[in-house]
Amino acid sequence: MLRIRKRVSKSRKRIGRNCICTLLLITISLLLLVWLPRLPVLLALFFPSLKLMNVKEDQGKLSAIARQGSGSACRSLYGGFVKWIMGKDEKGSDSIAVQLADEKHWDDLVIVIAVVSSRQKETSSTTGMRDTVETSMLIQHRAQEVVPKRITQMEEAIKNRDFPSFAHLACADSNQFHAVCLDTCPPIFYMNDTSHRIISYVEKWNRSEGTPQVAYTFDAGPNAVLIARNRKVAALLLQRLLFHFPPHSDTDLNSYVLGDKSILQDVGVQDMKDVEALPPPPEMKDNIPTQKYKGDVSYFICTRPGKGPVLLSDESQALLNPENGLPK
Amino acid sequence: MLRIRKRVSKSRKRIGRNCICTLLLITISLLLLVWLPRLPVLLALFFPSLKLMNVKEDQGKLSAIARQGSGSACRSLYGGFVKWIMGKDEKGSDSIAVQLADEKHWDDLVIVIAVVSSRQKETSSTTGMRDTVETSMLIQHRAQEVVPKRITQMEEAIKNRDFPSFAHLACADSNQFHAVCLDTCPPIFYMNDTSHRIISYVEKWNRSEGTPQVAYTFDAGPNAVLIARNRKVAALLLQRLLFHFPPHSDTDLNSYVLGDKSILQDVGVQDMKDVEALPPPPEMKDNIPTQKYKGDVSYFICTRPGKGPVLLSDESQALLNPENGLPK
Repeated sequence: MLRIRKRVSKSRKRIGRNCICTLLLITISLLLLVWLPRLPVLLALFFPSLKLMNVKEDQGKLSAIARQGSGSACRSLYGGFVKWIMGKDEKGSDSIAVQLADEKHWDDLVIVIAVVSSRQKETSSTTGMRDTVETSMLIQHRAQEVVPKRITQMEEAIKNRDFPSFAHLACADSNQFHAVCLDTCPPIFYMNDTSHRIISYVEKWNRSEGTPQVAYTFDAGPNAVLIARNRKVAALLLQRLLFHFPPHSDTDLNSYVLGDKSILQDVGVQDMKDVEALPPPPEMKDNIPTQKYKGDVSYFICTRPGKGPVLLSDESQALLNPENGLPK
Repeated sequence: MLRIRKRVSKSRKRIGRNCICTLLLITISLLLLVWLPRLPVLLALFFPSLKLMNVKEDQGKLSAIARQGSGSACRSLYGGFVKWIMGKDEKGSDSIAVQLADEKHWDDLVIVIAVVSSRQKETSSTTGMRDTVETSMLIQHRAQEVVPKRITQMEEAIKNRDFPSFAHLACADSNQFHAVCLDTCPPIFYMNDTSHRIISYVEKWNRSEGTPQVAYTFDAGPNAVLIARNRKVAALLLQRLLFHFPPHSDTDLNSYVLGDKSILQDVGVQDMKDVEALPPPPEMKDNIPTQKYKGDVSYFICTRPGKGPVLLSDESQALLNPENGLPK
């Protein structure tokens, strides 16, 4: 999912709600892939409420309403690949998301999310965005000169299912988003050493293959969202990740790899003994002995780009209690 | 010491020796403070050789010759505060350093260097600079729009011994240097979690005091160069650093704090028991319990801005063997 907004005030005087949002929008990342704990709850309350009220607004207008609650929510009314249009209204009324392609358009893609153990206190994305817009000397150049071109290129890459371009753009833009966070006063560090190591391993592997196999993107936190070009690559990726970031020995593998666990079978891993027996990836042969970082990742989630929210007909599948709206 | 160069090719076609150097020059940092293991050896060989050959060139020309060996060497022919002028010649013949003020001009400043334990393979600064010039979309904007203004402001701050401006410029520019490293393809991470923590502690302390007490700058590595506004502040800084980053219990404190150890007395620390008894800094009171990172710093160096190289009259003080030029 493509996030798009570019409402950076030229004068920096318009440091209002919309400007604050700028930083998030001008990152390019796959949304369904992003691990946002609050988002499902927001959508789980918002979407059924609209249906309940028999709201007949089109999806674009619903997206603008959702935008008032959260930037992530406005994009998440659609599945597949979504572009977030900045809009011009100061209050964000025309800030809507549009679907570029549904989830079936590019169904080779497989996503592995590394949820990274973090010991550091995190900066909230809202505070961070405000500080960046107010203090970074690079953010305006990024918003005006870099992002618009990348948005066009990313739309083209998605349209053509051009994985090398897609990966190059996603990785470069994720890194630049974090660069402007670092250029903030005081600086913001969302990524940690584990995030950096994951990037280094992916970059090394991609280079050794001659063409990108995996793209990465990082949101306002240390967790890596890794997009493999297909299922075969996803299995090789998970193999590498388990080699470098094994769980503590007493961990149940079943709680360390969540989501589509069938990829574990492709990797040939059934239990902790198999994890411990994994060979170093061939591209690491010059690093002897290859270092392992046990416990630096909390768990992995294997998933794929999905569809937007749907109203469940079977109440038992709901995660919220229909009587009081609280999590079951 | 102020490093100044801005030779970024507009067309990016001039990716030659001078362009490669650009990244280093456009950082602003205190040179004497930077921990460069190779530099003393280079100067120790270069400076006496010139004297031996009875070279009568002025310091500017010597600086241009030194530039051929290393960017750091050309600045290090002077003490105090030095500005590195880019020059126009492709081969760098007019790339020289000039002294803005000697070390006595601002003798309140005290420097504490935190040599950070690094488990990661480092990127060489030469390779990193080349990659950044070739791939960063932000480096040109930084070189053309941001650095020239900062250079002027930094000269003014040094002239007026204006510590708040000095600290703001040094910190912001160090962060922006690392931001463009992150905007490189593949991204370069010189700082690690320990570096980030040191920055966060300093920023928090400076904010709580209402005006900067300490400036920080990071070169092409994870080590923090911290500049305290005076000796009293340096003692408070070292106290905080020892609290957050105590050595392993079996460490001799004498090998953990190097250089001017007398600051330890100001801190009231004589042995490991005193380190363990240090109270949390008052600005950390909302972080209960305050986390400690034992072993994450290898050692500290306490020093001050110094003078340039001098020819030793007492041979016994030399670090190199006069007969074979090898370290004693």
